[in-house]
Amino acid sequence: MLLEQEAVRTSRPQEPSTEGRPSHGSVGLVRRQSILFDRPLHLRSGATLRPFTIAYETYGTLNESRTNAILICHALSGDGHVAGYHTTSPDEKPGWWDDAVGPGKMFDTDRFFVICSNVIGGCQGSTGPSSLAPDGKPYGLRFPVVTIADMVQAQVHLIDALGIERLFAIAGGSMGAMQALQWAVALPERVANVIFLASTPRSSAQQIAFNETGRQAIYADPNWKHGNYYGGPAPTRGLAVARMLAHITYMSDRSMEAKFGRTLQDADTLPYTFERPEFAVESYLAYQGEQFIRRFDANSYLYITKAIDYFDIGADYGSLRKAVQRTQATFLVASFTSDWLYPAEQGLELVRALEAAGRSVQFHLIDAPFGHDSFLVEVDRVAAVVGSFLKEQSEARV
Amino acid sequence: MLLEQEAVRTSRPQEPSTEGRPSHGSVGLVRRQSILFDRPLHLRSGATLRPFTIAYETYGTLNESRTNAILICHALSGDGHVAGYHTTSPDEKPGWWDDAVGPGKMFDTDRFFVICSNVIGGCQGSTGPSSLAPDGKPYGLRFPVVTIADMVQAQVHLIDALGIERLFAIAGGSMGAMQALQWAVALPERVANVIFLASTPRSSAQQIAFNETGRQAIYADPNWKHGNYYGGPAPTRGLAVARMLAHITYMSDRSMEAKFGRTLQDADTLPYTFERPEFAVESYLAYQGEQFIRRFDANSYLYITKAIDYFDIGADYGSLRKAVQRTQATFLVASFTSDWLYPAEQGLELVRALEAAGRSVQFHLIDAPFGHDSFLVEVDRVAAVVGSFLKEQSEARV
Repeated sequence: MLLEQEAVRTSRPQEPSTEGRPSHGSVGLVRRQSILFDRPLHLRSGATLRPFTIAYETYGTLNESRTNAILICHALSGDGHVAGYHTTSPDEKPGWWDDAVGPGKMFDTDRFFVICSNVIGGCQGSTGPSSLAPDGKPYGLRFPVVTIADMVQAQVHLIDALGIERLFAIAGGSMGAMQALQWAVALPERVANVIFLASTPRSSAQQIAFNETGRQAIYADPNWKHGNYYGGPAPTRGLAVARMLAHITYMSDRSMEAKFGRTLQDADTLPYTFERPEFAVESYLAYQGEQFIRRFDANSYLYITKAIDYFDIGADYGSLRKAVQRTQATFLVASFTSDWLYPAEQGLELVRALEAAGRSVQFHLIDAPFGHDSFLVEVDRVAAVVGSFLKEQSEARV
Repeated sequence: MLLEQEAVRTSRPQEPSTEGRPSHGSVGLVRRQSILFDRPLHLRSGATLRPFTIAYETYGTLNESRTNAILICHALSGDGHVAGYHTTSPDEKPGWWDDAVGPGKMFDTDRFFVICSNVIGGCQGSTGPSSLAPDGKPYGLRFPVVTIADMVQAQVHLIDALGIERLFAIAGGSMGAMQALQWAVALPERVANVIFLASTPRSSAQQIAFNETGRQAIYADPNWKHGNYYGGPAPTRGLAVARMLAHITYMSDRSMEAKFGRTLQDADTLPYTFERPEFAVESYLAYQGEQFIRRFDANSYLYITKAIDYFDIGADYGSLRKAVQRTQATFLVASFTSDWLYPAEQGLELVRALEAAGRSVQFHLIDAPFGHDSFLVEVDRVAAVVGSFLKEQSEARV
């Protein structure tokens, strides 16, 4: 096992604005770390991945008894950089859930040791299709297909390496919640609490359909070249279309209407043209596509959406009830009223199975207008629920 | 005005199966007709289209007083072939709303003279971007941008040519309903009844966003060549992606789950591959894309989705209330419980405006599981509502 650490800048960034919440601070400057595991990872497909690297970040301090660790799992387009800043540049945006992770925040780094790692198959430091294969060339589609179970199996090596026997909690939204559930089922003795947000124990036909359409947009890009585009132009147009589509599914009809309505883009009257965006919502989607292609690898998009589609933890264990009967954790399940991509019914399916299995679970239907994105955007409402759950559980167990 | 008629086959097809409804027959063999109008059509954008052809079909017989005509307006991917067969081939599928148009059906051709025309901008006989411009070359993107109001203006020439002063009814779902509403507002004295199904008086940000993503998939296809692809390979991959996306929005989460769930395609266990569809829903979407590119022109897809996006009849007349105050028709508005693309709230917005303006309107929220497609698929439920509406209105007025 090799520990690789990126250069740590010693200067600290300006403390970010706390917007009237002085007790809620930033974790400040953080660094991406990574571990190279030179051992085989046997994957669900039958293939083996060796070696593999896990990139991750940590925040806060592991206590002496190693009982205060929380693993946060990221969603499709996320990565291991959940909070803080990598540089001192004032233009840098913080990690993807910065509002949730830090001193005094929902995941309070004054109390908890928070870990977030990039999934295998990803493109932010963990081994994925854009990584070099043992032959020195990028994997491309030679990278083996991975599942949520495989992602978790890889994370287990990281948690072992950090010397943590049992996680106080695993938390995630969307695909992150799938990983949290997978942990609790596959490794019941290693998870005390699960925070499962805006997700499902089983990807539905509609969810698969949206992901497949995004993949087809990538396949249709002539730069994709069956995944062999590294060193040449990337299939950015196809990836941008996939992202635009996905982005619509992350918002709600209502939030799009409130944010854009039929506002025109840089015009008082309709230009009646195909040359440029006419409506503000078109310009916004184009911007989302452009931003995404700068930071994300198209092949990783294919692999990760496949992993989401494959997820059906009940099928893996005979039934959802049988799967959750394995768990020992206490569950917090939350769905969001306006989330039509991962509707509340899916969260409730998990809750009913947990209840039927006699497990401890609380369910929250959080009233929030921002669709699937609510779990990221409505931090205060999520914090109210998650914060008290963590408080209860830590008073009971830590 | 030139009347162009396609060759009429004299043999009749086998009477199609009536599935236990002997009173509900097929209109049988029908033919596409078209009229070339050598006069200018002044468009909303300021451009002029001249000449223009309207392709259409008719079913039933116009009565002597010319008071029994019903104009059916098609949706995005429809055309003027609403019912019956063009050939005697047993493999031919009937028109797109065959269950609704015929002897004894919802639009009873024993009583009504039913007309359906292809919209301008389309690709099934009416002038559109794939038509030859006056210079003898296909228009491509030189075709002027059209709106729903322009489509209706072109239809007016057809209805004039057929010698019909006042339509007994105009009916349509989705974009078809937009045209019906446009008729009633722009030409109030010429429309007695409006049947407005699964639609909106105003395209929303989310609706624009889905259409724009489909357009971006077409633009991203290197065969699109800024619309100049006629004579060469067409941007079929981009168009197929656009269709796949749209198709998801026409179904409901529930109907996709019932139809496909997580059923695998030709496999007992997951193949874990990118080489072929793994889930049945993926195969179904691919099939929908393949079928669509055989019959539809990518540029027409761009123009027609733009027309839908532009639709906001309230904005055209100062407010929705002011727009509907112009109408003289009796309205039937129906929305469908599972239609998340055109949710009931949008139909109700029109209903409230009509009521506020003192107009006669009835609203039906039809409980149907098939999403936006319900207006086409749930013919019996639609027929129950539309049939009694037409009966009431015809007893009152014909």
